Amino acid sequence: MIKFGIVGMGLRGNLFADTLRQNPHAELAAVSDAFPAALERSREKYGVPGYADVKEMLDKERLDALVIATPDFLHREPVLLAAERGVHFMVEKPFSTSVEEAEEMREAVNRAGIKCMVAFENRWNSPFVAVKEAVSGGEIGDILTINARLNDTIYVPTKMLKWSTGSSPGWFLLPHATDIALWLKPEASPVRVYAVGTKKKLAGMGIDTYDSIQSVVSFDDGTHAAFTTSWVLPESMPLIYDFKYEIIGDSGALYVDLADQMVRQAGGVYRHVHTLGTPINGQLTSAPSCMLNAFVNHVRLDTAPEAGADAGLLNTKLVDAIHRSAASGHAEKI
Amino acid sequence: MIKFGIVGMGLRGNLFADTLRQNPHAELAAVSDAFPAALERSREKYGVPGYADVKEMLDKERLDALVIATPDFLHREPVLLAAERGVHFMVEKPFSTSVEEAEEMREAVNRAGIKCMVAFENRWNSPFVAVKEAVSGGEIGDILTINARLNDTIYVPTKMLKWSTGSSPGWFLLPHATDIALWLKPEASPVRVYAVGTKKKLAGMGIDTYDSIQSVVSFDDGTHAAFTTSWVLPESMPLIYDFKYEIIGDSGALYVDLADQMVRQAGGVYRHVHTLGTPINGQLTSAPSCMLNAFVNHVRLDTAPEAGADAGLLNTKLVDAIHRSAASGHAEKI
Amino acid sequence: MIKFGIVGMGLRGNLFADTLRQNPHAELAAVSDAFPAALERSREKYGVPGYADVKEMLDKERLDALVIATPDFLHREPVLLAAERGVHFMVEKPFSTSVEEAEEMREAVNRAGIKCMVAFENRWNSPFVAVKEAVSGGEIGDILTINARLNDTIYVPTKMLKWSTGSSPGWFLLPHATDIALWLKPEASPVRVYAVGTKKKLAGMGIDTYDSIQSVVSFDDGTHAAFTTSWVLPESMPLIYDFKYEIIGDSGALYVDLADQMVRQAGGVYRHVHTLGTPINGQLTSAPSCMLNAFVNHVRLDTAPEAGADAGLLNTKLVDAIHRSAASGHAEKI
Amino acid sequence: MIKFGIVGMGLRGNLFADTLRQNPHAELAAVSDAFPAALERSREKYGVPGYADVKEMLDKERLDALVIATPDFLHREPVLLAAERGVHFMVEKPFSTSVEEAEEMREAVNRAGIKCMVAFENRWNSPFVAVKEAVSGGEIGDILTINARLNDTIYVPTKMLKWSTGSSPGWFLLPHATDIALWLKPEASPVRVYAVGTKKKLAGMGIDTYDSIQSVVSFDDGTHAAFTTSWVLPESMPLIYDFKYEIIGDSGALYVDLADQMVRQAGGVYRHVHTLGTPINGQLTSAPSCMLNAFVNHVRLDTAPEAGADAGLLNTKLVDAIHRSAASGHAEKI
Repeated sequence: MIKFGIVGMGLRGNLFADTLRQNPHAELAAVSDAFPAALERSREKYGVPGYADVKEMLDKERLDALVIATPDFLHREPVLLAAERGVHFMVEKPFSTSVEEAEEMREAVNRAGIKCMVAFENRWNSPFVAVKEAVSGGEIGDILTINARLNDTIYVPTKMLKWSTGSSPGWFLLPHATDIALWLKPEASPVRVYAVGTKKKLAGMGIDTYDSIQSVVSFDDGTHAAFTTSWVLPESMPLIYDFKYEIIGDSGALYVDLADQMVRQAGGVYRHVHTLGTPINGQLTSAPSCMLNAFVNHVRLDTAPEAGADAGLLNTKLVDAIHRSAASGHAEKI
Repeated sequence: MIKFGIVGMGLRGNLFADTLRQNPHAELAAVSDAFPAALERSREKYGVPGYADVKEMLDKERLDALVIATPDFLHREPVLLAAERGVHFMVEKPFSTSVEEAEEMREAVNRAGIKCMVAFENRWNSPFVAVKEAVSGGEIGDILTINARLNDTIYVPTKMLKWSTGSSPGWFLLPHATDIALWLKPEASPVRVYAVGTKKKLAGMGIDTYDSIQSVVSFDDGTHAAFTTSWVLPESMPLIYDFKYEIIGDSGALYVDLADQMVRQAGGVYRHVHTLGTPINGQLTSAPSCMLNAFVNHVRLDTAPEAGADAGLLNTKLVDAIHRSAASGHAEKI
Repeated sequence: MIKFGIVGMGLRGNLFADTLRQNPHAELAAVSDAFPAALERSREKYGVPGYADVKEMLDKERLDALVIATPDFLHREPVLLAAERGVHFMVEKPFSTSVEEAEEMREAVNRAGIKCMVAFENRWNSPFVAVKEAVSGGEIGDILTINARLNDTIYVPTKMLKWSTGSSPGWFLLPHATDIALWLKPEASPVRVYAVGTKKKLAGMGIDTYDSIQSVVSFDDGTHAAFTTSWVLPESMPLIYDFKYEIIGDSGALYVDLADQMVRQAGGVYRHVHTLGTPINGQLTSAPSCMLNAFVNHVRLDTAPEAGADAGLLNTKLVDAIHRSAASGHAEKI
Repeated sequence: MIKFGIVGMGLRGNLFADTLRQNPHAELAAVSDAFPAALERSREKYGVPGYADVKEMLDKERLDALVIATPDFLHREPVLLAAERGVHFMVEKPFSTSVEEAEEMREAVNRAGIKCMVAFENRWNSPFVAVKEAVSGGEIGDILTINARLNDTIYVPTKMLKWSTGSSPGWFLLPHATDIALWLKPEASPVRVYAVGTKKKLAGMGIDTYDSIQSVVSFDDGTHAAFTTSWVLPESMPLIYDFKYEIIGDSGALYVDLADQMVRQAGGVYRHVHTLGTPINGQLTSAPSCMLNAFVNHVRLDTAPEAGADAGLLNTKLVDAIHRSAASGHAEKI
């Protein structure tokens, strides 16, 4: 049994705790959160020790692995602490919001020889799994062009997240979209980025971040990808997110649209029901749960995570370049 | 470990064998098939004894449970054999194509006190699981009207199935659609059926069965459901099946459409990629696998199957009435 | 210039008046409405004489043609008056809600030798026009099966119409769906009907009519069609109506879905924008306007209306049989 | 009656000729085409004089107006000839593929005081007309972000067009998408562009142009738009083009998708039937026909075209900057 601690008991931390409780090879041993109320709730819910401080948790509990689910910009400390102690970890995307920190974290991971997995959960999301198989199987030939959109309704930055000012749709959403591209094109490297950002609506509400970002990424094989993201869709949208992917190859094309998941419901409001990962037989089957189960296996069987510190660093470099370009008005190198 | 034998090693039998190999509580102990070639392939693939005769398999192997995946009209014999020996079983839908046989089979099951589960796999299909939860949670109020369509392309009766003449879109497809209705409205009983069937295209190809059936089912709570099915869609359809469900309640409505599963692919042809149940981490997660895993748990934990012999018999009565009505031209009682 | 009078200045009467004002060959000469307020509004808006009584209008004005846009069950009187005076007319669907009256009306039309057109506007609705061309061009071979759904949100019977108690989704909506089938299969005749109806929600609100009707129609060529309709969809549906059509031929299939017209809008609520017939260059181009323009041409050029009294009577017989069957519980002949 | 000549009798020239024959205020007086076969066909079909040379046509016929439907890069000569003689004209988009030529053409138009309309036909395409009305009516507030995609299958550059090497998806497709943005945001000016292009597939087939272009346009109000285009979609796509538009405002959002026009057909292949502008009552009602009818009215009633030489020039400047940026690797000013 692999003993796990979770850092950050928000929505995601809870989902990971629930997943661990269903995994026959893992055990949730402790949780930590800086907010007393969240900590108390989790302590009660899961019946495990709770810590306000990660260091203390690592000192007091003999943990094999951590799940790090803190806000986007607070990954460095728990990662370094885990590395120091040789504790494996899965960390939320983005790996970091700072290239410098990401490099430091990767360095620490490599030195420690631990398993590090970055939570690019869409690699376990069935539509993208099917796409990856089609691309790997040569079904659309060489990829020429990728265009992706990932938007949230304004509910996310204004009501769901307490820390949206410290993030952006770029840091919160784009890592999903850019990781898919990097995953589908492992043989090519992103080399140049151009991006623009709009700051109006959220800034006017006192949340100093981008409403939208539009970016173009160039790869060293002469192909390109466009990524757009927005955090200000109306709350009346039928699903909280709108994730679309277009992949044009030289002998085929693939289209993914997660905005409509096969069930629509009209009642007080109209909505597209989220059915990807609906629990079946009580088993959690959504992408984040499948991802964590994969991580448990990597620790257990000593196999290599699908997305390690290198993938995390590259993604951070790419998204960082997007933000640099949006600020500078110029194309930026990665 | 629950020792399983599988009867009928077609597409479905193989899927169930693969599923059992992944289930930590089950073991595939033997397979049987009347066709020597299919039997030989399965014996080699799974490395277990193979039998041309079910009786012989049951005599020679100490099996705890059977999976019965024979053609629609060949369920009776293995079911009765299993019941005789007190062997639990999961049997493909429809339970039977004969009400008389279904009653005999239910009787045998009850006498034997074994677990019997009828493979109404859509009860484990995430969109319908989400719908069931919404309905059970009162989200659309009382159900007033159900309309469902379940079609296949002509590939299924002409190329996939060797025994389509002995079946019909009514027996092969409608049990899925009618079971969902019976599952969503457990408090109401179907009492009357009217149906019509068209015999032209398939009959002209030497397959003496219906191209399409259209039916209306009345429940004892004064509500009704319409079910249509066809087996003659063009092979150019982007998915081999077209399954749609409309559920109108007195305070909401639900719409399911499985014809487009979020991924579309263009290449030599255009198609909607089947992503429901894409294996993740190598794990089989499609509805039939989840269903069989549920059955393993029922045997293991001595719990009641979601759809037992009663549900199987009721479904057979309903679909039989549909066929009777299509033949008689009159409404028929159930 | 063809001089027109309009009978019934509701939503539809106004749309027809606006259409006539744009037609270079027609002139709106008078309007009539039994409700003084509606009459006064129209008189002012169109600057033409207004009459509470149709007979008086016909006596005082020298009209060439009438548009009859009264409630479903009030077509007989203006039709007979028009026939008496040899005045051509276009009348809203259904032709009549009574087979007896429809026969009387057809008789009067034939005797008078006037142009009569029944407003089956979907024959001028571009998606159905495209379907008709594909079917007529043999692109799907012989039609084997038709399945159609036409629903409205509960807004229509509870807020839009003042006279819904005197009608039903059967009389208000099904004539559209059944007419399309009769139009696509001119060589076959409907001979038998079975239908069921649910009366719960609207009845509970004091509107004594069906919530939903489900029906199966058999043709003399051995093929069948299923028509379902509902008047109780939640008002949160993204479009006020949901019109879908499935046509399966022996060498192809056609699918129409008018529920999503290519534009979606999220704001206070989420909705599918109605774009069929958006005016272009200020010209009214929706199906009802194209239909009325076609009628003007029939009068002007002495050509035969696409849907005359025979088509109107046949449609009324079919929808009447649906209502008879829903009441009797038996299949009914047409 | 306004006497028209058409320059360029390809697919579009023929459509415009057919449209003029239905317009009660216009007369097709002559046609011209550099290819003898096309010229001969048109001469016979329309029964009007045909000229290999535009100048000769203008000299011999007393024309009031021209429709110029030559390839993208061959608009200058007929435009200047028309301006010289004071003949009004409607010219295909793009106005020009050269900013220098576009300026010369605008100058000539202004000097001549003639009507010039650039054929941005989507301004007459019902979904975009509905969008324009919603935006103008303030329904989504101020526009923050626009993202658009306009792709063709590879059929267009390899089989439909003989002159694709001299054009690009940038010149052939993007003017539609960029014009919509400029039309929806008349108060803002595009000031900066960044773009990338992929040259692989078509170049490998001997057609030296871009497979895809991805671009970001910045406006002087601090908002941005992303436009992507591709000319290499598989021919198996269900519609020859894929046109999608996302418009995010500060109080709402609009989504346009022309890839599925409400009718789907399966037969030999699967396709989305093109229903926008299906002729009704024999009348041509597609966007290009409505546009030309609008131009006829502008000439007739001396009103200002919706998109004149200024709009044409601005669009050319924008698309030219996209091509300059794709070549230079830097953001370019407009």
